[in-house]
Amino acid sequence: MERIHGGDWAAYALEHGALPLDFSASLSPLGMPERVYQAAVEAMRDAERYPDPNCRRLRMALSERHGVDPAQIVCGAGAADLIDRLARLLQPKRALIPAPTFSEYERSLRSVGCKVERFPLTADFHLPAAFPDAITPETDAVFLCNPNNPTGLLTEPALLRQCAERGAALIVDECFLDLTEDPGRYSLVSSLRDHPNLIILRAFTKTFAMAGLRLGYALCGSAETAQALQDIGQPWPVSVPAEAAGIAALQEQDYENEVRAFLRAERGRMFRALSGMGFRVLPGEANYLLFCSADTDLAKKLRRKGILLRDCRDFPGLCPGWYRTAIRKPEENDQLLQALREVE
Amino acid sequence: MERIHGGDWAAYALEHGALPLDFSASLSPLGMPERVYQAAVEAMRDAERYPDPNCRRLRMALSERHGVDPAQIVCGAGAADLIDRLARLLQPKRALIPAPTFSEYERSLRSVGCKVERFPLTADFHLPAAFPDAITPETDAVFLCNPNNPTGLLTEPALLRQCAERGAALIVDECFLDLTEDPGRYSLVSSLRDHPNLIILRAFTKTFAMAGLRLGYALCGSAETAQALQDIGQPWPVSVPAEAAGIAALQEQDYENEVRAFLRAERGRMFRALSGMGFRVLPGEANYLLFCSADTDLAKKLRRKGILLRDCRDFPGLCPGWYRTAIRKPEENDQLLQALREVE
Repeated sequence: MERIHGGDWAAYALEHGALPLDFSASLSPLGMPERVYQAAVEAMRDAERYPDPNCRRLRMALSERHGVDPAQIVCGAGAADLIDRLARLLQPKRALIPAPTFSEYERSLRSVGCKVERFPLTADFHLPAAFPDAITPETDAVFLCNPNNPTGLLTEPALLRQCAERGAALIVDECFLDLTEDPGRYSLVSSLRDHPNLIILRAFTKTFAMAGLRLGYALCGSAETAQALQDIGQPWPVSVPAEAAGIAALQEQDYENEVRAFLRAERGRMFRALSGMGFRVLPGEANYLLFCSADTDLAKKLRRKGILLRDCRDFPGLCPGWYRTAIRKPEENDQLLQALREVE
Repeated sequence: MERIHGGDWAAYALEHGALPLDFSASLSPLGMPERVYQAAVEAMRDAERYPDPNCRRLRMALSERHGVDPAQIVCGAGAADLIDRLARLLQPKRALIPAPTFSEYERSLRSVGCKVERFPLTADFHLPAAFPDAITPETDAVFLCNPNNPTGLLTEPALLRQCAERGAALIVDECFLDLTEDPGRYSLVSSLRDHPNLIILRAFTKTFAMAGLRLGYALCGSAETAQALQDIGQPWPVSVPAEAAGIAALQEQDYENEVRAFLRAERGRMFRALSGMGFRVLPGEANYLLFCSADTDLAKKLRRKGILLRDCRDFPGLCPGWYRTAIRKPEENDQLLQALREVE
């Protein structure tokens, strides 16, 4: 299975000797908060030492934020690290995922020999009401992403809770949730106490634009699952600057509100602009939009102009012509719109 | 299998509200070179972006240093990450390791269901001349550490090459080699071209005191093995500051020479001092010394004085009374010696 992700600016830079304007990775358009940056820089003075393998300080801070026992929290080198470790921990024989969704679920599951069943989303890319019924006693694990990647669409928590009630391990990836309008309404964190089989994934990557530091975490329905997850893989997955940046990020409530307000306006503007150009645009609610074009070479053409889009043809459930674009700053988004007009 | 490593300053700090003087983790006593630190700090400005998943720039620099094709080089989040990924790649049914040696080999091997055979070192803790004969057609993988951890003793490359000729995958961990007197004479890098089954592990952690950044690499005897190793686990194991620090570290030839000269003197002094106090000290050649005491509570007693030693009783092949101490700066080493005198 070939591995394609957005954000491979390095391949472009190697080819062209310059950085692209990257709409293929979806990070906070406001950039890393200054205090988060400063905390990571200051922590470099401690980077001679091994990191705390248990991320005790960060887990305490996360415990306060989410009202979840630190014993139920596991930190990792980005959500991708935790997805990989979860597949190894659960060793599911059969797993259920929607299609399309983030590719690392299937890749990680297959790497442990799991049979992955793809359940198609509805014609308008929502999780079907019948999805919970597809979770049978033979289903060992279910991965769901809320909002979904690459669609940006949210799933009602009631439907997710129905999934949790089926008994299979349910992993809900909320990595982009804090960038949507009302994270509290959609998060399943409050359901953890009733569902020991529930695991929620979260990352600092997107919300705080710190993809290069590698930091994410899992909130587990049971302390036993958390301990087992912690014990899988290398002892020190989280670096010293990453832990420090995470602790600082949890203080940035104002920044989070600012990002959400910014995205509300700019996402709306980009939705209207792209729709106005004749693309079919999904009403995504995160910091990216999925749209369809008759032109299956759009990403290639934009790349020649120094702009990266995520060509989504490799997502099972999508086909050539689908693209995901990040929402960036207004002037950068205008550059994208201008480039799209030029290649039409 | 309980997981015990040196360097858990965080557990001590949580308990005592202050940092210990840590001899339980063995890092360069000269600390992180200033230019490496600066490179990591500067790279923080790029840490909003995802890292280059292929670490192209670092692999080019490593290729120049070792004269090995970049296609044979894989970077990871410390050698521990690569050990874990190697076990997953090789999926050995039976593996052979010496005893005592670094515990992560056995832990990673067991995590993939491998039967691990422990081959005892000689009475003076060397790799026995008969070791290669223990590598039978049923042996899928062999892990060797040179110099060995926790003994600090070197193995002749001729003996390692005999192991490589048996056909099983041979992983030689050279993470501490650059801290010994003559790394070139003992390294197996030049044997890579003749042995596609050989994989050499190296880390920046120890030589450049950058344990908190998580960076190591594997030099593989074949590009196919390297590609397969790269494809295991999460896509972005190496953070942006780690890659930048690694590239900067490869310029620090003077620093490396300085560390070796420093260790030559200080290791000799500590060997004589500890021997003079009646301990049995192995003539280790890296930045740590393994010694035996009649007092099986030595580590506990020193901990009460704010000093951490690595209690090695959990290493298969060792027993209570064995301790590993890092070589630190002279004044710190004097503090250790003084504390040892006080607890006697």
